[in-house]
Amino acid sequence: MKLIKNGICAVDGFEAVGKHIGIKKVKKDFAVIYSDRLCSAAGVFTSNKVKGAPVVLTQKYLKDGKAQAIVINSGISNVATGKKGYEDAVKMSKLGGVELDVDNENVLVASTGLIGAYLPMDKIEWGIKGVKDELVGDGSDASEAILTTDKVVKEIAVDFGGFKVGGIAKGSGMIHPNMATMLGFITTDAKISAGNLKKMLKRAVDKSFNMVSVDMQTSTSDMVLIMANGNAGEVSEGKFQDVLDFVCLDLAKKIAKDGEGATKLIEVNVKGGPSTQDAKKIAKSIVSSDLFKCAVYGNDPNWGRIMCAIGNSKAEFSEEKIDIYFNGVKIVNGGVGVDFKKEKVINSLKKGEVKVIIDLNEGRFEATAYGCDMSEEYVKINADYHS
Amino acid sequence: MKLIKNGICAVDGFEAVGKHIGIKKVKKDFAVIYSDRLCSAAGVFTSNKVKGAPVVLTQKYLKDGKAQAIVINSGISNVATGKKGYEDAVKMSKLGGVELDVDNENVLVASTGLIGAYLPMDKIEWGIKGVKDELVGDGSDASEAILTTDKVVKEIAVDFGGFKVGGIAKGSGMIHPNMATMLGFITTDAKISAGNLKKMLKRAVDKSFNMVSVDMQTSTSDMVLIMANGNAGEVSEGKFQDVLDFVCLDLAKKIAKDGEGATKLIEVNVKGGPSTQDAKKIAKSIVSSDLFKCAVYGNDPNWGRIMCAIGNSKAEFSEEKIDIYFNGVKIVNGGVGVDFKKEKVINSLKKGEVKVIIDLNEGRFEATAYGCDMSEEYVKINADYHS
Repeated sequence: MKLIKNGICAVDGFEAVGKHIGIKKVKKDFAVIYSDRLCSAAGVFTSNKVKGAPVVLTQKYLKDGKAQAIVINSGISNVATGKKGYEDAVKMSKLGGVELDVDNENVLVASTGLIGAYLPMDKIEWGIKGVKDELVGDGSDASEAILTTDKVVKEIAVDFGGFKVGGIAKGSGMIHPNMATMLGFITTDAKISAGNLKKMLKRAVDKSFNMVSVDMQTSTSDMVLIMANGNAGEVSEGKFQDVLDFVCLDLAKKIAKDGEGATKLIEVNVKGGPSTQDAKKIAKSIVSSDLFKCAVYGNDPNWGRIMCAIGNSKAEFSEEKIDIYFNGVKIVNGGVGVDFKKEKVINSLKKGEVKVIIDLNEGRFEATAYGCDMSEEYVKINADYHS
Repeated sequence: MKLIKNGICAVDGFEAVGKHIGIKKVKKDFAVIYSDRLCSAAGVFTSNKVKGAPVVLTQKYLKDGKAQAIVINSGISNVATGKKGYEDAVKMSKLGGVELDVDNENVLVASTGLIGAYLPMDKIEWGIKGVKDELVGDGSDASEAILTTDKVVKEIAVDFGGFKVGGIAKGSGMIHPNMATMLGFITTDAKISAGNLKKMLKRAVDKSFNMVSVDMQTSTSDMVLIMANGNAGEVSEGKFQDVLDFVCLDLAKKIAKDGEGATKLIEVNVKGGPSTQDAKKIAKSIVSSDLFKCAVYGNDPNWGRIMCAIGNSKAEFSEEKIDIYFNGVKIVNGGVGVDFKKEKVINSLKKGEVKVIIDLNEGRFEATAYGCDMSEEYVKINADYHS
């Protein structure tokens, strides 16, 4: 397995463009991902009961398991916009269909940004005109155009030998398990049926994007879409799942690391669980704890806040069996603190590495969640960002 | 109903003391509440599965519905301290029993502060010696001695005519529905059986302390205790419940307002709900949203973040029926934003008043939750507070 360049466009047959059309003041805010042929396609969507119009429409369009293009804007999410918002989403796909010469039901749409505002359809109409000639085989502009408060572009591409998988994602705030304020777009040339694609994407997302939390807020716009153009022919399902898992996990970690105001990536591995579900609940509860996140920001291996988060997780465990390791150093044994080299742990935290292992010593199941610390900058970003 | 002075000691027959015994560096850290006769007593405790030793012991002691004194320390919570921690809690009650000449099973204990450290029993032994002579009829030292990161003392006392109710509380961080990092102590001279007391306390706590959130973290040490010495004879249950509700709600709001780093008290009233449970879920989800709390800190009536929190609440509602009011101004109608005088709302937010009304327009049930905004100071306090 080899890492290669160009994200989603690393896969032959896919092109993309990212540009500024005036939804945001200066930054790129509009992207199109295009396949030269009809693809098997699948998606995983937000669990928030309030869903953006683009989420509703794209879910509908994906019922046939087919897609050829995705039109995306950032700056406004087209959420809580009623009937007009839905019509705008339909229009966005139709405009894409005309320009790209694709049946509009195969043009998926995604939007991210402010909730409650209507899309500036005049700007989108103007921006999409002639977009087919602007498509290039380098995904970097598209990966930039989908960002909101993100500081860095998130992309990856993998050449497995027989087939390739490329992906880009955005997400920085309003991020919590069950699909974050995040968009993810994945391309591959592997030949896979839409049904299998959906099943495998769900599996990969459950272990990656759904294990990331920045701030407990599951957004109204989340989606991860995958398009497979079949160019590389049939592939081993097992191998494809491995590569897809790898790509999703890489993008998910990049999102956690770029969490609003984050200075550190936090990885919490819960093992010895009585079930995977219990291990997941505990891992998520810890990476979601503001108090624990603040302690990590302050370079403090505060295991009391971890015990508090474990107790709040509603998972099964026995307090007196819990062992906790902080960057490889055992600091809790059987539910009670032990003497440890605190200075050593603090210094490792200062390097920005935070790996916490919780051993429940109950069973053989485990789970890992990813998050980031909480700094004053998180508050500043979200207090200054005005609706 | 008349507000009176002296908190828990406003009720005849109760005395208290608060002092510094060296658990904290400088601030008062030890308190005793004493009744001159055996009381009916009841408590409500944390739902966190990890419970502090004092919680476990006090729950056990309260099985007979009787108590005469409470010994409290702040600075160390005696949580995650195993067998020794439990023995320390028992010893604390025994020392109290000897000094106050009370059967030790009628001496309840409560601790708040750092998790994972053992109580300095030598200091407690030294501090409790001769404490009976230090008791006074003014509760202010005790209400100060139970604080941790709190900025202000929280106390109230009410004279209803026939009977009195007094209360003190602490709580500032690690605060979330289902009992916050909070301790509450309530006294009354009304004559009420322990069974009724428990039922009525639960009812009052559900509408007050359990509707407060500072940071989604349900602490391991929470408890609210009530002691009724019966001095004033039988009282009307309905009237007593009203007064108890009033006292609990007053203390709960004081806790929300003194949330770590808080600059504003937030009140979210959800009405028109299909059930009380749905209204509660939505109200709590909104006051618990970091993103919404940051927006309030930034004086932004960001209703998009409210819609996001409503969608995440797992409650029943119809998006297209939701109306939202911000400090009396309607800003969402039928799930969609309306034009409103934004400047006027922003100015009202700047005054520190935040009342949000959500009308679900579904049924006739309602609920109100209380919280505070989130400032850089919250992060600072919790990053600087070292274990």
